[in-house]
Amino acid sequence: MSEKKEKILSILGVGLIGGSLAKAAKSAGLFQKVVGYGRCLESLQTALDLGVIDQVACDVKAAVESADIVVLATPVGAIEPLLKQAAGYFKSNAVITDVGSTKGSVIEAVRLALGEIPENFVPGHPIAGTENSGVAFADAKLFKGRRVILTPLKNTDADAVLRVRQMWEGVGSIVSEMAVNHHDEVLAATSHMPHMLAYLMVDRLSKMDEQHEVFKYAASGFRDFTRIASSDPVMWRDICLANGDALLSALEQYSSELTQLRDAIETKDDKYLMALFGRSKAVRDQFS
Amino acid sequence: MSEKKEKILSILGVGLIGGSLAKAAKSAGLFQKVVGYGRCLESLQTALDLGVIDQVACDVKAAVESADIVVLATPVGAIEPLLKQAAGYFKSNAVITDVGSTKGSVIEAVRLALGEIPENFVPGHPIAGTENSGVAFADAKLFKGRRVILTPLKNTDADAVLRVRQMWEGVGSIVSEMAVNHHDEVLAATSHMPHMLAYLMVDRLSKMDEQHEVFKYAASGFRDFTRIASSDPVMWRDICLANGDALLSALEQYSSELTQLRDAIETKDDKYLMALFGRSKAVRDQFS
Repeated sequence: MSEKKEKILSILGVGLIGGSLAKAAKSAGLFQKVVGYGRCLESLQTALDLGVIDQVACDVKAAVESADIVVLATPVGAIEPLLKQAAGYFKSNAVITDVGSTKGSVIEAVRLALGEIPENFVPGHPIAGTENSGVAFADAKLFKGRRVILTPLKNTDADAVLRVRQMWEGVGSIVSEMAVNHHDEVLAATSHMPHMLAYLMVDRLSKMDEQHEVFKYAASGFRDFTRIASSDPVMWRDICLANGDALLSALEQYSSELTQLRDAIETKDDKYLMALFGRSKAVRDQFS
Repeated sequence: MSEKKEKILSILGVGLIGGSLAKAAKSAGLFQKVVGYGRCLESLQTALDLGVIDQVACDVKAAVESADIVVLATPVGAIEPLLKQAAGYFKSNAVITDVGSTKGSVIEAVRLALGEIPENFVPGHPIAGTENSGVAFADAKLFKGRRVILTPLKNTDADAVLRVRQMWEGVGSIVSEMAVNHHDEVLAATSHMPHMLAYLMVDRLSKMDEQHEVFKYAASGFRDFTRIASSDPVMWRDICLANGDALLSALEQYSSELTQLRDAIETKDDKYLMALFGRSKAVRDQFS
């Protein structure tokens, strides 16, 4: 923001992530005005009432036509139709970015919507969030000290990348760049897989629970393990559809190791178990 | 404790659980004296220094011979050899209980060590704990408001059950009784399975990490999901060996549902995904 060239930030989809970015950008004084647009008028009103955004745009055209930076912050499945509506209305020097958890699919959605990937589109992903969704949980500090991954393409304009980087650094994030496929593999492993396993675990238990009151006996370990199963179902359906290939390959490897563990339990292979648990504990202790 | 008949509590294995019980019992004034015994002199010294126990017993005989309640709080794999050493030294009116996460195997260990299950042995399991281990983490409030499951057998003395119940209620726990098999199934589902999945997840990632710095991009969801992978490897090896049948059956069902989820991702079955995630979120939201 050194050149003070950004005046208007427009957030399309003012939920937890979009709302938190709006709030953080306002509190850091990065823009003169933050405009919000979304499908749900009620939550836009909430965003306005909470001071998360300065102004509600009544349609997509109004949302993007004067914005210097446009952030697509809807679930990834909504990006294509949204961009189709917005096509042709962007300011000439505008930068477009997104916050989607999958990058390959977002880039494909942009291509489908606009016929090409514009040079001023910078695919982005803040590695932040909570199991809560909706603007009511928006938090100006959500991105402080958290990583943001940008996955620019060959034709992406370097200045556009810089402007998006400066926005995220302006709200306290640490920005990295990586290749699209690498991003999608890393996120499948670190985020998408754990969400799948947690959703399944809760579902499994609730099926048992028809007979037994199992949740009564679930302790704090279970509570933490399954916290992410409270995440937004629409967002996660979209992620599964969007990052299917990387997620399937992560699931494949995990399942094969689950089978090995199963065999070790069956054959009472204490050495295998001790090695696995010891290795994992050492790594996890370091991570904390 | 209404009859004030309990004078000495003896904890065999003064780690996180044993130490916390000792501390809680002392702080509630349930006994005149709390004695500790264990394999590791250093941690017994720590227990003494921290005021967790009043006295260190120099051998198993000394640990049990004057105790009114003896609590076996070692990893479950150590119970059989320990009880073999203690056999013949218990006071005539002593009550013996344990804190093991698996009940079928502990009962079997008692049978192997003593030739029978004595009437004064009350299998027990406090559903409490953290990923930390060792007496340094002992916490007098660990059991407050937490569930303790007792699984008395047909021949278990009712007064012995009552005395163990009173001890746990005296440190603030809610005590339930259930059948041994039911306990082992419920715990396999709510605790043992999540631990297996978390250990595997960290191990999977650390294998990926040889090439990429994946942990750098792991967020708070991952941190909570894998917190339990910092748990004590010896304890969890023992649990796998001890509760193999129930754990294998839980793994079997989980794996089959993981395959269904895999298929749904592959065929882009949005209805299945939405239903699964929606169902789980509803259940998990209620649990919080």
